[in-house]
Amino acid sequence: MIPGTPNDRFVAIAESLKPTLNTTKSSPIGLIKCVADEKAILGWTAEDAGKSEEVKSLRDGDEIIFDFGTHRAGFFEFDIDAVLTGVEPADAPVRLKIIFGEVLNDVAESFDDYKAWISKSWLPDEIINIDYLPALKYRMRRRHAFRYIKIQVISTSLRFGVKFSNPTAYAVSSAPVEDPAPLSFTNAGDWLSEDEKTKLRKIDEVSLRTLRNCMHTVYEDGPRRDMRLWIGDLRLQALCSYATFKDYSLAKRCMYLFAGLPFNDEGLLCACVYEKPVPKFGGNSIVDYAMLFAVTLLDYVKASGDIECGKELFPIAAKQFSFFAKNFTQDLRYTIPERNMSDGGEGWHFVDCESVLRDTLFSIRLTLNLVGQLTLDKESSEHAIMIYCLKATQELAELLNLDAPAFILPDSTSSVPVTTIIEKLTNAHRQHYFDANRGVFVSGQDKQVSWAANAWAVLAGVPESKEAAAKAMQVTYEMEGAIMGMTPYLHHYLCEALVAVGLDKLAVKHIIDYWGSMVDAGAETFWEGWDPKQPRSSPYGDLHSNS
Amino acid sequence: MIPGTPNDRFVAIAESLKPTLNTTKSSPIGLIKCVADEKAILGWTAEDAGKSEEVKSLRDGDEIIFDFGTHRAGFFEFDIDAVLTGVEPADAPVRLKIIFGEVLNDVAESFDDYKAWISKSWLPDEIINIDYLPALKYRMRRRHAFRYIKIQVISTSLRFGVKFSNPTAYAVSSAPVEDPAPLSFTNAGDWLSEDEKTKLRKIDEVSLRTLRNCMHTVYEDGPRRDMRLWIGDLRLQALCSYATFKDYSLAKRCMYLFAGLPFNDEGLLCACVYEKPVPKFGGNSIVDYAMLFAVTLLDYVKASGDIECGKELFPIAAKQFSFFAKNFTQDLRYTIPERNMSDGGEGWHFVDCESVLRDTLFSIRLTLNLVGQLTLDKESSEHAIMIYCLKATQELAELLNLDAPAFILPDSTSSVPVTTIIEKLTNAHRQHYFDANRGVFVSGQDKQVSWAANAWAVLAGVPESKEAAAKAMQVTYEMEGAIMGMTPYLHHYLCEALVAVGLDKLAVKHIIDYWGSMVDAGAETFWEGWDPKQPRSSPYGDLHSNS
Repeated sequence: MIPGTPNDRFVAIAESLKPTLNTTKSSPIGLIKCVADEKAILGWTAEDAGKSEEVKSLRDGDEIIFDFGTHRAGFFEFDIDAVLTGVEPADAPVRLKIIFGEVLNDVAESFDDYKAWISKSWLPDEIINIDYLPALKYRMRRRHAFRYIKIQVISTSLRFGVKFSNPTAYAVSSAPVEDPAPLSFTNAGDWLSEDEKTKLRKIDEVSLRTLRNCMHTVYEDGPRRDMRLWIGDLRLQALCSYATFKDYSLAKRCMYLFAGLPFNDEGLLCACVYEKPVPKFGGNSIVDYAMLFAVTLLDYVKASGDIECGKELFPIAAKQFSFFAKNFTQDLRYTIPERNMSDGGEGWHFVDCESVLRDTLFSIRLTLNLVGQLTLDKESSEHAIMIYCLKATQELAELLNLDAPAFILPDSTSSVPVTTIIEKLTNAHRQHYFDANRGVFVSGQDKQVSWAANAWAVLAGVPESKEAAAKAMQVTYEMEGAIMGMTPYLHHYLCEALVAVGLDKLAVKHIIDYWGSMVDAGAETFWEGWDPKQPRSSPYGDLHSNS
Repeated sequence: MIPGTPNDRFVAIAESLKPTLNTTKSSPIGLIKCVADEKAILGWTAEDAGKSEEVKSLRDGDEIIFDFGTHRAGFFEFDIDAVLTGVEPADAPVRLKIIFGEVLNDVAESFDDYKAWISKSWLPDEIINIDYLPALKYRMRRRHAFRYIKIQVISTSLRFGVKFSNPTAYAVSSAPVEDPAPLSFTNAGDWLSEDEKTKLRKIDEVSLRTLRNCMHTVYEDGPRRDMRLWIGDLRLQALCSYATFKDYSLAKRCMYLFAGLPFNDEGLLCACVYEKPVPKFGGNSIVDYAMLFAVTLLDYVKASGDIECGKELFPIAAKQFSFFAKNFTQDLRYTIPERNMSDGGEGWHFVDCESVLRDTLFSIRLTLNLVGQLTLDKESSEHAIMIYCLKATQELAELLNLDAPAFILPDSTSSVPVTTIIEKLTNAHRQHYFDANRGVFVSGQDKQVSWAANAWAVLAGVPESKEAAAKAMQVTYEMEGAIMGMTPYLHHYLCEALVAVGLDKLAVKHIIDYWGSMVDAGAETFWEGWDPKQPRSSPYGDLHSNS
């Protein structure tokens, strides 16, 4: 396939919006030692190991772990000097292994048996050699994401050990330096217990940190890996940012990058784009992400009031459905063609991370880790996402005072307005995917019940009443064997749906259970994948790839 | 012990003489593959592996070896781009191991079983991670010494391999960019065969390269390791440079560094000084090196005509003997106190590298490698070096029109002029160290015969006639069991002595045998230690530390 021709004007607009990063300097709060602990969710507890300036001299094989107190994305700089064993100066270079830890596991466990299928280049360990001591303000070349930094001395010489001073983290982010005020619960949540409020404040703190540490010159999907802009992540990050850091221009930049770097010349959007070293198309397209661009744009216009941007990007948002209309059957079911995900290209349906199990190549590698988990059937979720996003398109058209688009569906030969399509698809959804006996939305031949199917149906406004919607959510949530969510991404839509149907308390309970369990497990930022029941599982095949 | 107080004025003069380095850019001549070869002296032959631009894509585990044609000290820079397996861009960093080879062994053999006692930080391997591709003009941070560069791809991702382009070496040296003309043999050596002339031209070429690649902001003892200024090395390097690159100011800078950074407040000279990150005393003092400072200064004044420098540094050169006069017995033998070399400090007697065998700590580590080699007894060598250097002091005094110094020897209570001391020591040397039966100079209770003892006695002018001197050299050279030399440093003094006694042809034969054998073994620069009979031996316990 051939990448879409870039729209240079859009890319230029995006580049003009590139933010400068704020830098925040900080020092470790102390040294720690990792102690294996069966009671700790991820197996390790940190023990105080004194102050960093108290370490006298490190020789071959010695190691220390700096604890910077919280997680950040940024650069590490330090001074290093020799501690001489006699009168001679340091007579050789010093070789160090430096490991950046987001969680204790990163600095407590060896990477030697790393078994993820994603590149081990992502592992946060580096080896450096420093020729002359003292070396002042030695700065590691690359940005890392870390709370902990382990330094292992590989080699000095007979003549000297080394001592570190002024270990300094330079956190970078395009978020404002000041965090918003902690949750006050003055406008909502007066029914919460103090314990719940405390827990929610902590979850909010970690959420904000996650957002901050993903905010660079784009909204990155993760601060360690893969540090890349994806539509699905962008939508939720920007939404969160409008409510907290009040950022609008980074979201705008990101949308223009997508608009400027289409997947093909027909204007299908990429699922992700690359910005470094130069903006570049991402090589694959995700159906639900392309559709969610309209929602992202709608969120942005509503939050920022930037009608001009809305008008400019509306045609791109509005046309995405035209690429997927052909996936509907005559009776308006949605069909998902078989596809080898490792190829890149189009036709990838995401919804949630478990999708990788559909793929032979990956499923072999993942089987050991995800054994016992069922594969999410995505048919009805995608169907609902179409409706949800077409509704956003319609709302956008109204807001911007533009004509709503029209499309040809397989059930007719002429194009029909989007309002009609929404109606038709809503009816079809009720007809094909609602199990009236159980009161839940289902997917596929086996009538699989999943959080995804029900959350998206609810968010798409498919249920005939709020009561029916609430029942679908409640039943699904409590159903033994229902397919749950793997990623915080999907858990978000679950909670959004719970709130939408009035199940606020259940939503809060879920937030505390799910995100709270990450906090309990030591998360300083929320991870891309997390299953509280299998804390060491990973959608990538190795815990050290979860970021 | 306390370091000597620096002489700031001398250090400032040294710093004012710091040269700027010339940079020479070059590209590989091609790719090679290392093939095990029993006939090759060091076990490996290079096979042509094509042109570097022909390599299509390198994936995890792949490696290439660039051959830059000759050895240099400098920086490595390259462009690297992704070679995509599909339509997606490179979606992960690339991790590379880069190994700089002075000889094939460096790039053909694993360093995993490195067993030298000197720091493995000297090993020329680096691991780097590059986040964004293409990366243009990626420059390794550190200076390396290399002819070959092996690049091993540790990890890319499923999506891409990598391709290197514009691999570029930036050689740095303070030597002039142009080499002197090849040896013409017009003034000497008309008796040489064409084969010998060819061989000598090659040896000269490697000598010049060695010198060039050691010439930076000081005369370094080795281009890879330890890149440090030592008096003994400086003396020979400067001497060579006066005859070739015509450098005077680097030698002057080096002498001022020694003068400015004394070992103690009495003015004893350090054996080495450090210049990076700031000039710093070297922490140890070698008796013969301190004495050779006078010779270094004499060479410099004669070559450059810089009388002013000679006068300024003369008092420092002239006083060195005062520190060692106490080591003589009443009957003017020289005694070498026991000393643990790993301590640094003073009282180290070098002469040749085998000295390390005297030391328990090192001898244990070296035994396996040097089994069967006898330890050099240094007593008579040091005695002769004293005479040799006192003669240089006297000559300097005459040249500079200054008073020659006087010292108190243990055989009297008042000081005597240096001319008298030279006479006394010469007589003592003949009396204690000359074995009239065999016609050779000996050392120690076992009357050990060595190249060192005889070369230094000859250079010191101890023999009663040129014939006796020639006989001593000839007999020693041919004597089964005589202690030979380990380092090119000592081999130099052997050859200088052979020439001094008229054995020019033997000197040339030896140069061809010894330095020629290094060339035959693949030396692009001459090594610090070399035993043609044990090509894989090392004074440091591992071949990969010989540089």
